Amino acid sequence: MLHVKQLQDVVNSYFANYHIPEQPELLYKPIAYSLSMGGKRIRPVLCLMACEMFSDSYLPAMDAAAGIEIFHNFTLLHDDIMDKADLRRGKPTVHKLWNKNIALLSGDAMSIIAYRHIAATKNQTAECLEVFSNTALQICEGQQIDMDFENNDNVSISQYLEMIQKKTAVLIACSLKLGALVGGAGNREADLLYDAGINYGLAFQLQDDYLDVYGKKDVFGKNIGGDITANKKTYLLIEALNSADFVNVALLKKILRNKSISSSEKIEQVTAIYNRLKIDVLCRNKISEYFTLGLQRLEEININDQQKNRMIGFVESIAGRKF
Amino acid sequence: MLHVKQLQDVVNSYFANYHIPEQPELLYKPIAYSLSMGGKRIRPVLCLMACEMFSDSYLPAMDAAAGIEIFHNFTLLHDDIMDKADLRRGKPTVHKLWNKNIALLSGDAMSIIAYRHIAATKNQTAECLEVFSNTALQICEGQQIDMDFENNDNVSISQYLEMIQKKTAVLIACSLKLGALVGGAGNREADLLYDAGINYGLAFQLQDDYLDVYGKKDVFGKNIGGDITANKKTYLLIEALNSADFVNVALLKKILRNKSISSSEKIEQVTAIYNRLKIDVLCRNKISEYFTLGLQRLEEININDQQKNRMIGFVESIAGRKF
Repeated sequence: MLHVKQLQDVVNSYFANYHIPEQPELLYKPIAYSLSMGGKRIRPVLCLMACEMFSDSYLPAMDAAAGIEIFHNFTLLHDDIMDKADLRRGKPTVHKLWNKNIALLSGDAMSIIAYRHIAATKNQTAECLEVFSNTALQICEGQQIDMDFENNDNVSISQYLEMIQKKTAVLIACSLKLGALVGGAGNREADLLYDAGINYGLAFQLQDDYLDVYGKKDVFGKNIGGDITANKKTYLLIEALNSADFVNVALLKKILRNKSISSSEKIEQVTAIYNRLKIDVLCRNKISEYFTLGLQRLEEININDQQKNRMIGFVESIAGRKF
Repeated sequence: MLHVKQLQDVVNSYFANYHIPEQPELLYKPIAYSLSMGGKRIRPVLCLMACEMFSDSYLPAMDAAAGIEIFHNFTLLHDDIMDKADLRRGKPTVHKLWNKNIALLSGDAMSIIAYRHIAATKNQTAECLEVFSNTALQICEGQQIDMDFENNDNVSISQYLEMIQKKTAVLIACSLKLGALVGGAGNREADLLYDAGINYGLAFQLQDDYLDVYGKKDVFGKNIGGDITANKKTYLLIEALNSADFVNVALLKKILRNKSISSSEKIEQVTAIYNRLKIDVLCRNKISEYFTLGLQRLEEININDQQKNRMIGFVESIAGRKF
């Protein structure tokens, strides 16, 4: 059984040696660029880990892991067009470095390449393809629901959780389930890992929302307060707006509407309201709740403790804390 | 064995009753709209026909036919964004009726739905998926090469033929091959049909280039001379620019550079040059050549004449003439 770091090296070395055709250059160079940007490789590592739970080796999961990582990067590429984002992981986005048409088309090609990898899995291929297609479609639904939120001032917490489940959590769950399936797991184990993945995925996204306000820039990797500046509907903002404390809610709404306020003032004032409403505590509790649910699903699987502990350790390292 | 008209009805009725989820509305309505726009359903009909060559029924090919038609409509949807096209089959394009982000995302979802159908084929599924992925990727390459041509004044005929093979012909070929595979054909027959499809596809595209200049608007369904107005590199223009008649080539280049000429004058003068260089005859001969090559591949397949004649009749009806 490899260490997490070794599995990350496996994935990074796989992509460092990944064959991408040379021509047409404007189709394939953006794909190579996108795949070389790195990131934590969370999904492929989870996929390889899940495979090793049921197989001697992570190797049967390489195609599934690659397909999921390529698909993930495809969604980032197209999301960046839709969000007009200039930077991704500190580097210029594809549509900025080339142009929108090139980003659109090379994204399309990445989605096809991703499917080619999933179709190349050698074990329980039909099941893998079905889970992958359902996941991929839910990710599109999640992205659309997220865009719909921009014009909706009455988003409920359950609507928000549905959105992040589709946009983020299902791909984490799919990574684990596909790894399990190609590793030879039965339906029960594969489904337990899927459910664990949904809970971990929800926790990761809530953690991301939390760190946007309460994180440290050098650890978080993004500017603090970006969601607040953009009036982005996060778990924190929706909980705050749904609070019974009408005075603070009215104040919060006034700040959100105020277009002359500076970014730093806005971040400071909104954070103060979150603190008064104890939204930080609420959010941390919710994150712990989802991690615990994920852990419970993992505990139900009949594998040795070493396997379980490796996965828990990885999940905690992503979250940046223990549970 | 059904008549062509009956197969078209099968496809149209399949899409008229096609289940598309209701929510999120802005993801799925554009998909329903795109699939309801109709068209000649050339690809799915060819797919069903190829299946009936080797099977009692067209039914085993329904998923392959649907997947290919949905994928085709996905490429049109994304191409329309890239080309900034306002109209498709006389109706507003998705990005015009909604917006670019919605067109981008619903296109992504269509590509996934297409794959789901291909993965649902019940016979020779792995082969179908492999052919489909290779085809889909070549279509992206073809689209990129086509975009590259806009900034390249030295496109050769062989580069042009490579582009239309990838952008157009491979999906016609894929339709026939997948139909054959799900119908139970062996590799030899499936490959012969694939080759026939490549030749038919090239012929269809050259015919499209030809009709832009020499067609009648009510039959062609588009304004005549659109390619000439846009300086689009078609078979006709590339052959004309490669002609040894330097006087006419110089005149043609002058017209292409002239930005103050009216559309109708430009169409008239360029058409006159094509006529003097006998580009019309050259193009008709090339079209006949590809149709004949397609026919030869079809003749090599061990199926009855009724099957062959139905396909030849359909291909001739698309081309609008007999060969």
